[in-house]
This record gives sequence, C-alpha cells and structure tokens, in this order.
Amino acid sequence: MLAHRLIERKRDGGRIEAGEWRALVNAYAAGHVPDYQMSALLMAVFFRGMDRGETSALTDAMLTSGAMLDLADLGLPRIDKHSTGGVGDKVSLVLAPLVASLGVAVPMMSGRGLGHTGGTLDKLESIPGFRTDLTLAEARVQLERLGCALIGQTAEIAPADRKMYALRDATATVESIPLISASIMSKKLAEGLTGLVLDVKRGSGAFLPELERDLELAKTMIDLGADRGCPVVALVTAMDRPLGRACGNALEVEEAIAALKGEGPPDLMNVTYALGAEMLVLAGTHPTRDAARRAMEVSISSGRAADRFRAIIEAQGGNPGVVDDPAVLPQAAACELYPAPRRGLVARVEPKAIGRGITALGGGRTRMEDAVDPTVGFVITAKPGDWVEAGEPLATIFAHDHAGVEAGRAALRAAIQIADEAEPPLPLVSHRVSADGVEPYPDLG
Amino acid sequence: MLAHRLIERKRDGGRIEAGEWRALVNAYAAGHVPDYQMSALLMAVFFRGMDRGETSALTDAMLTSGAMLDLADLGLPRIDKHSTGGVGDKVSLVLAPLVASLGVAVPMMSGRGLGHTGGTLDKLESIPGFRTDLTLAEARVQLERLGCALIGQTAEIAPADRKMYALRDATATVESIPLISASIMSKKLAEGLTGLVLDVKRGSGAFLPELERDLELAKTMIDLGADRGCPVVALVTAMDRPLGRACGNALEVEEAIAALKGEGPPDLMNVTYALGAEMLVLAGTHPTRDAARRAMEVSISSGRAADRFRAIIEAQGGNPGVVDDPAVLPQAAACELYPAPRRGLVARVEPKAIGRGITALGGGRTRMEDAVDPTVGFVITAKPGDWVEAGEPLATIFAHDHAGVEAGRAALRAAIQIADEAEPPLPLVSHRVSADGVEPYPDLG
Repeated sequence: MLAHRLIERKRDGGRIEAGEWRALVNAYAAGHVPDYQMSALLMAVFFRGMDRGETSALTDAMLTSGAMLDLADLGLPRIDKHSTGGVGDKVSLVLAPLVASLGVAVPMMSGRGLGHTGGTLDKLESIPGFRTDLTLAEARVQLERLGCALIGQTAEIAPADRKMYALRDATATVESIPLISASIMSKKLAEGLTGLVLDVKRGSGAFLPELERDLELAKTMIDLGADRGCPVVALVTAMDRPLGRACGNALEVEEAIAALKGEGPPDLMNVTYALGAEMLVLAGTHPTRDAARRAMEVSISSGRAADRFRAIIEAQGGNPGVVDDPAVLPQAAACELYPAPRRGLVARVEPKAIGRGITALGGGRTRMEDAVDPTVGFVITAKPGDWVEAGEPLATIFAHDHAGVEAGRAALRAAIQIADEAEPPLPLVSHRVSADGVEPYPDLG
Repeated sequence: MLAHRLIERKRDGGRIEAGEWRALVNAYAAGHVPDYQMSALLMAVFFRGMDRGETSALTDAMLTSGAMLDLADLGLPRIDKHSTGGVGDKVSLVLAPLVASLGVAVPMMSGRGLGHTGGTLDKLESIPGFRTDLTLAEARVQLERLGCALIGQTAEIAPADRKMYALRDATATVESIPLISASIMSKKLAEGLTGLVLDVKRGSGAFLPELERDLELAKTMIDLGADRGCPVVALVTAMDRPLGRACGNALEVEEAIAALKGEGPPDLMNVTYALGAEMLVLAGTHPTRDAARRAMEVSISSGRAADRFRAIIEAQGGNPGVVDDPAVLPQAAACELYPAPRRGLVARVEPKAIGRGITALGGGRTRMEDAVDPTVGFVITAKPGDWVEAGEPLATIFAHDHAGVEAGRAALRAAIQIADEAEPPLPLVSHRVSADGVEPYPDLG
C-alpha cells in the first residue's frame, strides 16, 4: 500500500518525505516493491520533479542501501572526477594517476559504455590482464599504497541504485535531472570523498545537450554534495566534437598514455589540466588553479605521472609494458586512412555519429550484455575550424575486417561535414559552477 | 525495443499509432512486454493524454485481444447500460429485466465492488445459488431465450484490458479519462451492442466528482462508440448522496425487486426510468422518451418486469422465490435503528463515508481477493433537504454482530450531517450528452 500511496502523491504534485523514500528504496532493493510500481513512480518523478530535500533523501536511501569505502584514516584528501559522458573522453585515464602522483587519493569508480558514449572500464580492460573488479577491501589497500584504484561499481555499492538504474534504462526514465543526480551522487558519496569535480558535457554529443540543463544538473549535484559535507565543483566542457583524436577503447588508452607523457592533443591536455586543477585545489594541496596546473606539468615532464599509471596497471594485474610500448595493446586487423572528400572548412565532427560508428564496428554496446571489440575505432585528426584540402587525410579507421572499414567510412562520411563556412565550435571549457554560483571560464585558446 | 521507444515518445508528448498500439497490447497480453514498461507508459499517458485516434486504437487493440459476443443474428436490438459507479446504485438490477421485458436484448457484463463503490456481481451473488460465471456460449443461449444475461467479465473478453486494469490499479494510473474510456468501451463493445447508455455519476461520491471531467468522459466514450457504429448516450446523475435507500449487497437486491414491482424509492425509479428511456429510444423500439417511460411503467404495473427477473434468476441457478419473498435472501444477525442526534435539516449524506462504512461492516472490498458479507449495510431513509426531529430514525444498520452495529453507527455519524441550513443537493439527472452535444436534462423534481 505504501508504494501506491507514494505514486499517487507524486503523480498529483506532492512530496515524498525522507522516511518514505528510505522505506520505499529498502523495500524495492529487497524485492518487496515490484518493478512495475517503481517504474510508474519514476515516470511520475520525470514529470513532477523532486525538490532538494527529496533528491537528497533519495540519494541517502540509495547510498545507505550498500557499503561505503571508509577512507577517513587514509590521511589523504580524497577527490574523484565524474563526467556525464562523451565520445573520445579518456580524461579519467590521465587524471587519476596524474592527481594521485600529487598526493591526493583518487578512489575512482567508473562505468561501462552504453549507447554512443564510451566507458572507462571498457577502455581499461583493453590493457591485457587489467582487472577492474577489485573488492572494496582490495581497492582500499591499493589506495593506501598508490593513492589510486580504478574500479567498477561493485555489488556492495548502492545496490538499490544499480537495480533502479537498470529499470530506468528500460522504461525511458533516465533523463530526469534529480534522478540522474541522485544516482551519480549515491555512488560517488560511497567512495568516501572529501571533494568531487564534475565534467558536465555540453553540445550535440552530450547526454544533456542544452547549457541550461547542464547548469541545473551541476547545481543539483553541488547541493547534494553540500548536504553531506562533500564540496562539488563542476566545469561545463564541449562535446559538440570528440575530445582528443582517438575514439575507441584501446586507441584511447594509447592516447591517454601519450598524454601522461606530455604528448596528448592540446584539447585533451587542456580539459585534463582544467579538471585536475579543480581537484587539487579542492584537495587543499595546491593554493590556486595556476599552481596546480604547474605541478601537473612537472609531474608529467618528470615522468612521475606515467610511472604512477604503470604502478597502478601492475597492481591491478595489467601488463605495465603498455606504458612504454603501445604495441602491447590489441591491434586492429584492418586500418585505412579517410581522406577529405573536398576542400573547405571542417564544419562539424558529430560525436553521436562517431559513437554510433564505433558501435557499428563492434566497439560499443547497444545492450549491457554485449561484448566489445577493444581494437576498433577512429583516430580523427581533423577538428572543427580546420581548413583542409581534398584528399588530405582527416582520420584513420581501425576495424576488424574490410566490411568494418566500409562501415567506418560510412560513419565518418555522416560525422564529418566540410563546408565553405562554419559556426565556431563551443568553447572547450565554458563555465565553472560551484557553491558560489556560475562563472564564465577563462578562454583556453 | 518497441516498448522503450513508445514510452519515450509518449513521455515527450508524441503520439502512438494504431499499428503500434496493436503490437504493444498484443505483446503485453502475451507476456512479451513486462509490466514495468507498461506501467511507465501508462503513467506517461496519465500526464500526456491521448487523442481520439490513439484512444480508439487502444480500445480496438484491447477489444481484439479477446472474443466477442456475436449477436448479429439475434434479431433484436442489443443495448447495455454502464455506470461509473456509486453507493446504493442498484439500477442495473432493475433496468436489465425491465428493458429486456420490452423486446430489447441486454447482454449485461458487470464488475465487482472495490473501494467505496459496490458491484453488480456481488449484489446478484447474494441471491442463493445465483451464478454470474456463465460462458459466452451460455450467455448467448440465455439472451435468445430471455433477452438478458447478467454476467461477469469472462476470461474470454478483452484479456489485455483485464491485465492492464490490474496493473493500473496497482500503479495509481486509473484516473485517466482516455484509459478509463478505452477500458470500459473495449469490454462493452465485446458485447456486440447496437447502443450503449452511460450513467456518469457526479458529486463527492463519484469516481470523477467534477462535472467538467464527467462531460469529458462522456464525450470520449461517445466518440469511441461512434468510431465503431455503436451510438452512445450519457446521462450525468447525482452521486452527492446514495441512490435509493438501501446500501449493501442483499439489501440492494431487496430494494431492486421492490422497484421492479413499482415500490422503489422515487429517486431510484426516476434514474431507472431516465436511463431505460434512453435505452429504448436507442433500440428503436420506442419513438420518444415519454413513450418509453409509459411502456416501462406498464411493464412494472403488469408484473411483466418482475416475471422477467424471476426467469433470469432461475435460468442462472438462483432461487426465484426471492422475487416474492425477500426472506430468501441471507439476513443480517444484528440490526438497529439510527436516530437523528439533533433536530434540523439533513445537510449531507456522504456516499464515500457510507461506502467505507459498508466495507467496515465486512460488505465491501479493499483488495480484489477479499470476500464480502452480503447481509450487512444500511437502509437510509433520510435524504438531503429533509427536516428531521431529534431521535427520529434516519437509517437502519444491518451488521454481523454488536461490534458491527457500533462501526455502522460511527459511519452514519460521519456520513449524515444535520444543520440549520444546507446547500441544495445536485439535480438527480443534470445533463444529457450525445453525439449532438450536451443539453441540460429536464427537472425530475
């Protein structure tokens, strides 16, 4: 009877109290409230929204449905980064070892790719032997030793969220800002963080393309963090084109390693430094973003950042040789250049078309149970605003076979538009959002 | 994937096409679409509504999920009445034999009581031996012989609606006019009707208390009927107080039998005649409502209407002696008068409080699997607008035991308000709605 009453109340615009959320989420996790009642409630929430107190109560209920990493006696600030997801977004792979190399613990729990966006776990698992299924106890030991663990959402963490997320995915109730925020924060808070940096992607390839909704999401997550003493800072970054050049699991690992050695493409380096600076300032290890950026540059140029990644890979069972020799990664059977079909200005490199192209090549998922081919994807050197000549290579296609190359070529034809004129792309980082409000971000050039 | 796409489209305000409704409803009935997707869709429909074409397509899909009564060769017009439900509403028991006695087939499929409203099946089953679970084949034979069968919704009729209704009941998605209309009409159209009369209840005890929503429901059902060549006429009738005096299963059968003998309370007789007149005019057996009413009065005064009910009861296995001797019905163990607590004007006899009182006495259901005690209830002689003296009997309580009498007294105290002044009650029949539009109904006094 509880579930029916709460569905009805939310349907009619009422509010669900903290104790009710707790009872409902516990009953749902225990199987006492059926999926069909929960999905009706979630759809009512989609239409009616939730206020700050309700969102906070749902977050708490999901958080306390499982275990937490208790890292209070680690003696280090504990900061994570979360991205709303995009194409070519390998920032986590660079940022986790880089920030850990500067005295901050990064207990990073990531997801798998679904739809057109990639997932950090899939990328990491393209490294031969790499294990992402550490237990919380194993993750804790590694955090003590190396300041970083790169793991998946274990069954111990927020099981109610895991069950509810699968239901939302099946019932078109994902796109609700309070539900998204509660889901992310229940998992992130389980990491026992002292601060969180959000990378909110904006533009056609983003989960929420509109700036207004991105800012609303950032504000909601900042409030949820504030309610639990975990400060949150968000940067709004561009996802109207892929980030960096590599798009595809093993290809992105290779590019991330290059970035840890100071050889990453400029857009990837700038987004990584911008997010990393927020992490280090939140951690209190560096007084300003400029100081933090300089420290990151030194960690990279001195080889410390790459060393830390090597150590993490080794600790998690992967082949550490990958840091020095990308040929350790599985290699695509077929690869071919993609030439510009005409001369002109690169007007668009559409991330969704690229993401769908990776899936068409076998490197992405349409359902959670699909396996992915780590070798396939694209390295796209052309960026919006570039002037190109006909026949000039814009990208390289990496595929399993000739048919894959054809599919890749079709995807690139759909994704890359060349024109005589073009709108300027979105600024790489456009806004910074914190508890103090929204401010424009300085131009990164 | 179909279900997800349709949920998403409806959620975003789009339309579901006829072929899609058919595929979805068939897949749901066959168990290929899970309840949790259907309930999310139903909640999206609650918020977004459906246009006439969608409502019609859903009705068709549910109708064709099961069998239909094929009565085309019966050689009689086939008219049913449907009420949106109320307290003390025993009109079906009077109307079915009465209209059948005038040369019109009445294939009446009814439901059970749930919540504060009663159900025709429960009332009929208080007659010893009465069977409501006829097959469609048995119902057909009886319709040929007696022009009337009083049955429940068999498993053969609109199974998709049956499954979907149970889901709506559990997920707070009942109160949607297109869903209500499609559900009712899919079952009524399965009766193979040539016309349908709706009794849309209005006022505090009605399913939809507001006149505006009642008219919207009537209009939606009229459109659905028109799309299938089944003319529908609706009367809006008062449910701000119980209809007639008896409230409770066996008590209502007794009052219905009295009505068939011309001894029913005036409000019950007037509503019965008003609805019956629409049925007979729709059937084409009588040219005007006045002529139809005169014919009904003659059928009652001549004993033909009561004879027809006797024959129907006998054909369905019940004890026909009930028509001549109400003592054949099961009798309550305890009964007690309820006196007016003060002198004054009867301001309110609140149907919901009476309905909940019946349930408290054991005569109603809060869940579909509950059993009901047919003997309990109230006979309420006081009507809004009556002047009463302190101590004058307003009602009789019929209960299982002394505790029941106490519960009944508490219910009447809550339900019957006596005051110095009172708002006038709603007109007994306020509006007539047909394909030609809404018109006020002549005053019945």
